Amino acid sequence: MAVDGFPCKPASTVVDDDFFSALMVAAPSTKNPFGVNSTRATVSVFPGLNTLGVSITRTDLAPGGINPPHSHPRGSELVLVVKGEVTVGFTTSTNLLYSKVVKENELFIVPRGLQHYQLNVGTGDAVFMAMFDAQSPGLVVPTLGLFATKPAMPMEVLTKTFLLGADEIDVMKSKFVGF
Amino acid sequence: MAVDGFPCKPASTVVDDDFFSALMVAAPSTKNPFGVNSTRATVSVFPGLNTLGVSITRTDLAPGGINPPHSHPRGSELVLVVKGEVTVGFTTSTNLLYSKVVKENELFIVPRGLQHYQLNVGTGDAVFMAMFDAQSPGLVVPTLGLFATKPAMPMEVLTKTFLLGADEIDVMKSKFVGF
Amino acid sequence: MAVDGFPCKPASTVVDDDFFSALMVAAPSTKNPFGVNSTRATVSVFPGLNTLGVSITRTDLAPGGINPPHSHPRGSELVLVVKGEVTVGFTTSTNLLYSKVVKENELFIVPRGLQHYQLNVGTGDAVFMAMFDAQSPGLVVPTLGLFATKPAMPMEVLTKTFLLGADEIDVMKSKFVGF
Amino acid sequence: MAVDGFPCKPASTVVDDDFFSALMVAAPSTKNPFGVNSTRATVSVFPGLNTLGVSITRTDLAPGGINPPHSHPRGSELVLVVKGEVTVGFTTSTNLLYSKVVKENELFIVPRGLQHYQLNVGTGDAVFMAMFDAQSPGLVVPTLGLFATKPAMPMEVLTKTFLLGADEIDVMKSKFVGF
Amino acid sequence: MAVDGFPCKPASTVVDDDFFSALMVAAPSTKNPFGVNSTRATVSVFPGLNTLGVSITRTDLAPGGINPPHSHPRGSELVLVVKGEVTVGFTTSTNLLYSKVVKENELFIVPRGLQHYQLNVGTGDAVFMAMFDAQSPGLVVPTLGLFATKPAMPMEVLTKTFLLGADEIDVMKSKFVGF
Amino acid sequence: MAVDGFPCKPASTVVDDDFFSALMVAAPSTKNPFGVNSTRATVSVFPGLNTLGVSITRTDLAPGGINPPHSHPRGSELVLVVKGEVTVGFTTSTNLLYSKVVKENELFIVPRGLQHYQLNVGTGDAVFMAMFDAQSPGLVVPTLGLFATKPAMPMEVLTKTFLLGADEIDVMKSKFVGF
Repeated sequence: MAVDGFPCKPASTVVDDDFFSALMVAAPSTKNPFGVNSTRATVSVFPGLNTLGVSITRTDLAPGGINPPHSHPRGSELVLVVKGEVTVGFTTSTNLLYSKVVKENELFIVPRGLQHYQLNVGTGDAVFMAMFDAQSPGLVVPTLGLFATKPAMPMEVLTKTFLLGADEIDVMKSKFVGF
Repeated sequence: MAVDGFPCKPASTVVDDDFFSALMVAAPSTKNPFGVNSTRATVSVFPGLNTLGVSITRTDLAPGGINPPHSHPRGSELVLVVKGEVTVGFTTSTNLLYSKVVKENELFIVPRGLQHYQLNVGTGDAVFMAMFDAQSPGLVVPTLGLFATKPAMPMEVLTKTFLLGADEIDVMKSKFVGF
Repeated sequence: MAVDGFPCKPASTVVDDDFFSALMVAAPSTKNPFGVNSTRATVSVFPGLNTLGVSITRTDLAPGGINPPHSHPRGSELVLVVKGEVTVGFTTSTNLLYSKVVKENELFIVPRGLQHYQLNVGTGDAVFMAMFDAQSPGLVVPTLGLFATKPAMPMEVLTKTFLLGADEIDVMKSKFVGF
Repeated sequence: MAVDGFPCKPASTVVDDDFFSALMVAAPSTKNPFGVNSTRATVSVFPGLNTLGVSITRTDLAPGGINPPHSHPRGSELVLVVKGEVTVGFTTSTNLLYSKVVKENELFIVPRGLQHYQLNVGTGDAVFMAMFDAQSPGLVVPTLGLFATKPAMPMEVLTKTFLLGADEIDVMKSKFVGF
Repeated sequence: MAVDGFPCKPASTVVDDDFFSALMVAAPSTKNPFGVNSTRATVSVFPGLNTLGVSITRTDLAPGGINPPHSHPRGSELVLVVKGEVTVGFTTSTNLLYSKVVKENELFIVPRGLQHYQLNVGTGDAVFMAMFDAQSPGLVVPTLGLFATKPAMPMEVLTKTFLLGADEIDVMKSKFVGF
Repeated sequence: MAVDGFPCKPASTVVDDDFFSALMVAAPSTKNPFGVNSTRATVSVFPGLNTLGVSITRTDLAPGGINPPHSHPRGSELVLVVKGEVTVGFTTSTNLLYSKVVKENELFIVPRGLQHYQLNVGTGDAVFMAMFDAQSPGLVVPTLGLFATKPAMPMEVLTKTFLLGADEIDVMKSKFVGF
């Protein structure tokens, strides 16, 4: 529940490195069912961002990899593709889908809180930077928030949400064991 | 894309009724697959809310009815049950589930942007009021944003999101035709 | 002077009940000269509201009871009548009066900081919910802020404010002893 | 209802004088029952303040003059006395009274939305500047909002607010005819 | 890095004097190369301003004195001349210069973050009050931020910024030794 | 002076491309005295950013090139180097200098409104992305705001600011003719 706002370091102890981060240099592994991996430079791991209203995430996508539909409760997202070709799409409050293939140094903006995805549609790996107007934009992944919660989401909620039977829901849930 | 901010009416034309709304008096029908119906008093239908930072929604639930998991991009939601018994639950950025049975005149708070649901767990109809700190909080329903978009979400996104085949996705989509 | 902003509870200690409040269930006594009683669910008594920008107050009015003119320094107020008939009125910076009889499930909006009152004009008890876009909207009751302060407001201020004599002021003050 | 936010002038037509105002140079007459006169430099008369979050009011007080208890819905007030001696006092949400005699070049801060007054306690005229963190802080004068509204405040509201009879209220109202 | 936001004093210990400051009463010496001296009443020295969004600075200028070009990272500045005649000028993002001679009780507004200066163009001393919509507006003086930093700005930065040689830069730097 | 806030496009006319920009794809020429060129994707050229609180600038630096000391009135800046090695430094309100050599995929944060520079310290070209928590962060370049304004900054301001003679100032100004 610590949304925005950590105590500041005493001024006399501040050093150059407090404003610097090398968190996003290494390319993380994308060997997982979705072919995606995100490295976040938000205030909890880059404290120099505190009170400054910005943060950034590096997302690597294997060929064909997807960053599944999700939203950020506290920030707009400006996508900058730095490698490859990525389809970025978001849906509105009226379920309109806006999407675009985005290539190196091209930009796509996702309004705050809306559900969006990124799909690697190029032939090789892809990397994009997602910039937020919040030091801690948060993350809502609907599939995880349905199938991988602690405690587990009641089966009645899931069957009624998808209008399916418990057997069918169990199949869906089985894909998210371990997440 | 009109988030917050409509032009104000000229002061000389303002009347008592501009600050009043009877939008939420009538109980709407809940005869639909989810057993739910929401009546929104947001700025687009209650212009007197303009610039004032609040809005409200009345939600009716048939016995067993569900308000499926969803989020509001631009507002926290304070739930006030006015009739019946409703389980309210939300999931966090780390997929923890917090939930509670909420009865008449009891309150439950859903932090801004997080995914949440309401389920009628009482024996009769239930009604709750959802109050927001935004004149236009917006609405993201992940199931509709996946299965009922215009244009349709590409099948590749859906199969990769659920780690299922196109046949299984088609079954899921069939439940949302017409929404 | 603690306006908005309490420290957050450590995430590992957060439980379902932190987001829940039954504060407003009981109907409080309205046996007092004004026939009114307000139960506030603001952040100081419902800590789960911290940083979330909303709060609510339940106000009970006896037949003929009044919630005397007052203002909230840090919030707009959306009035939802849940029982009975209540006249809600507010005055603007140019002393225009806007008012309306509001009945069950009807709404009336009071812009932030403006002076307003609620009067039970029905035949029985009335109850309304006042929702705010602030976790701690504050309360300014001009009569109490004139006649019931600690220390007492200087008599010179009161006589000059009302353009009346000290004797007349003393009569007015006598009504507010004990508040 | 035009709270904050006017359209900006086209950039090519902006001139030096748009950022300048001589509104507060002249000393206004304080010949009225309260011995007070305020000259406001808010955005409606000094358009260059638009979007910039500040405004200022010059208040002149005759000897013994009072700026009666009032509040500003949308701004804190920093009082700078530029001539004479002025008692500034405000009351809190719990009806505590904080006050102080303030002299030339001394400061007193009134938190946003709280009820406050200024009384000339020196031997000659007094002048103070009130600075706000809002381009249009608004003004609520409880006495005017009770006794000088259009339409008139219902007598029932007044008698119940002051716990007095209609005759006594009529005496009070008679003092505010013409305001 | 403590931008805005100090802990509030416990309510029970708050006294009248917490809202009062006499910091700006004394006229400071202006015997320095610029003929200027500023006395700041910001939250760090006037804690009662905490969370209230306003602060003020008194600036004294000797005849011919200058408050050199500077900006405030977190606030607009409303200039009120209280003595003498002062030219106030600011430059925009497109390097347009807007300026005006401002006399006693006249106002000039400097939009937030823009570079501005004040020059005493009268025959005697001048004094102005600068009011900000921030409790801690901050201060950026480009000349000091180039020639008087700790550690020293690298010579390469200075020569490339001014397109001058190191010898010429050393002359410029010599003027700011001791600041 | 149009800070933040353009009218939104009618919802029915919104298309995919409104959220997309290829503005920053082309590498601009850095053949100028500073060896720098910035391509801005702010709301005025990428209207889809309207109300969304973010923008980005691509800056190219020739070997040894400098982005001279400047500040952004309305935004923090998160620097992401995408090519080469860049020293980024900023100065505080107390003229402390914080700086760091930043390489590919490394980050450096500049707090809102503070003066900062970027210097290519690598052997080849360098490119960095500057991300802002504002759709229109603005730009203050002190050297341009002193030597290249329209109308020209009065010589008296310049000589008094630098404590130099008019001849020396004229030399400085001559470097900025044509900017």
